[in-house]
Amino acid sequence: MAGQGKPGEFEIIERYFAPLAKRTEGAFGLQDDAALFQPKPGYDLVLTKDAIVAGVHFLPTDPYDLVAQKLMRVNVSDLAAKGAEPRAYLLALAWPDGIGEKDIALFAAGLQKDQDIYGLELLGGDTVKTPGPATFSLTAIGDVPQGRMIRRAGAKPGDAVYVTGTLGDAALGLKLARGEIELSSIAERRGLIQRYRLPQPRVSVGTGLRGIASAALDVSDGLGADLLHLCTASGLRARISQSALPLSAAARKLLKQDETLWSAVLSGGDDYEIVFAAPGEAGVKLELLGGTTGVPITRIGYMEEGEPAVLLEDLSGKTAPLAEGGYRHF
Amino acid sequence: MAGQGKPGEFEIIERYFAPLAKRTEGAFGLQDDAALFQPKPGYDLVLTKDAIVAGVHFLPTDPYDLVAQKLMRVNVSDLAAKGAEPRAYLLALAWPDGIGEKDIALFAAGLQKDQDIYGLELLGGDTVKTPGPATFSLTAIGDVPQGRMIRRAGAKPGDAVYVTGTLGDAALGLKLARGEIELSSIAERRGLIQRYRLPQPRVSVGTGLRGIASAALDVSDGLGADLLHLCTASGLRARISQSALPLSAAARKLLKQDETLWSAVLSGGDDYEIVFAAPGEAGVKLELLGGTTGVPITRIGYMEEGEPAVLLEDLSGKTAPLAEGGYRHF
Repeated sequence: MAGQGKPGEFEIIERYFAPLAKRTEGAFGLQDDAALFQPKPGYDLVLTKDAIVAGVHFLPTDPYDLVAQKLMRVNVSDLAAKGAEPRAYLLALAWPDGIGEKDIALFAAGLQKDQDIYGLELLGGDTVKTPGPATFSLTAIGDVPQGRMIRRAGAKPGDAVYVTGTLGDAALGLKLARGEIELSSIAERRGLIQRYRLPQPRVSVGTGLRGIASAALDVSDGLGADLLHLCTASGLRARISQSALPLSAAARKLLKQDETLWSAVLSGGDDYEIVFAAPGEAGVKLELLGGTTGVPITRIGYMEEGEPAVLLEDLSGKTAPLAEGGYRHF
Repeated sequence: MAGQGKPGEFEIIERYFAPLAKRTEGAFGLQDDAALFQPKPGYDLVLTKDAIVAGVHFLPTDPYDLVAQKLMRVNVSDLAAKGAEPRAYLLALAWPDGIGEKDIALFAAGLQKDQDIYGLELLGGDTVKTPGPATFSLTAIGDVPQGRMIRRAGAKPGDAVYVTGTLGDAALGLKLARGEIELSSIAERRGLIQRYRLPQPRVSVGTGLRGIASAALDVSDGLGADLLHLCTASGLRARISQSALPLSAAARKLLKQDETLWSAVLSGGDDYEIVFAAPGEAGVKLELLGGTTGVPITRIGYMEEGEPAVLLEDLSGKTAPLAEGGYRHF
């Protein structure tokens, strides 16, 4: 390969990925078989691994820096929802045959940006070729003080249910990008599309929720589906109120134009907000946390005894189980 | 999907992968966003991540239990060469559209077998669909007492060079499987092919090498290429003797029939033996280690000052740099 003027595996790693690991002692410049990670005494590790495939989880025409950042952020979001601080990551990259070096460089640049934002370090991984679509996976490692990881299980009856940020923006952004709906303000249109393309994991809120939230997860499959996971794991039912759901100004406009778009708020995926339960007395602490992080934290309902389900009181005051309707991956 | 009588992502995980995690407290039955891993105090973690693609790293017709075991073992072999004890793993599995449930079940069965053999636990991961070939990655986590990981760098001039087991069997097995060469004994033929299809990571030797080996790695790309990596990382030259290289009886027969097959021994990949350097005085300890593990450990040469290279004294007594000729992945 090298003889044909195309860089080989070792050159690709040396040129584009070794620089991402240059400050990481345990990565050994990506020159060893494995990486060394020294856990901080008194901390537990939190581990997550997600994969994305071109044509399934992103478009083959998406710029590769955004693809890399999305891959990074869906994993960082999982860590955030568990109260973990991002520390390090490993990659497995299967590049399609025709891939250009420019795209690989762009991908690495996206990773570099997010390393700097979220404070992770590249530890190692693997780079291979595939006759199929680009397929990437990332393993993210975070840590929490011992015993402080926030699980899906653990909510108690009477706990309030909260959500960070705003809901539905990503799903509406996807519809805008696809030309399925319209929005006159170019800035708002761009803002919603950006929420779809580049999630904003709520890391500072997540670490702030340690010792406050009784259960949490990130909204990746849609509020209905994800809150139901929390209910199932906790053995409880959630009651939420549609009028309480936090919306961006742009989403409000779209919902006014077409109320069927509420489905994007209730069950659209990709928001990467954190939905969590916390006892009533945590209200003041949460107000403070919202203030210090600049991320709105909104109470949307509460947990109660009952078969796991999400009951929605809609805008007309009627209550019914929220249909699952989340994105099915498989 | 579920409506079409085909199991969805959640059912697949529940049915085939959750059982692999049932004894692992921190995997939460694969029901949470992330897994919890509690490092042992006083231990460093060793991390590695490899990916395999159907049609590139394995044949689409290979039985899926063997594919899973090969994926597991190439990673476990990396841990072994670093002196680490395997502890846990995460998966990212991209299944092709037409995949049958039987193959997924077979894949899980292969993982279960190797979990039992190597003592790892499934912590979590991701399962997606791909329009391309099956693409799997595995992140393996091992641990070593603090500061005891064996690196590629660290060999000293005068250190002896050793290799575990026998060399060339996997590459010869591949040639047999492809019908490129013949071997009359069916048992020996099967044995060599098996060495190609199912590596035997040298975990017990690896952990025994802590504090003995000055540098090590596993032979996955071929002796020439891999020993050169050790030389480069250590800033030294290796001198090895062809007549000292450990061979199986079956390999000996094939080499007698056709001496061009020596290339399989010198630069064939996939043996997953450990090649390492150790000071001369370690000889007695290594004899003992070979005895207790039942794995031959053979001295094949030594390290000396000089530009990184592998010098081979061939069977006629002539010495020349061993051409790299390892398998190029990219």
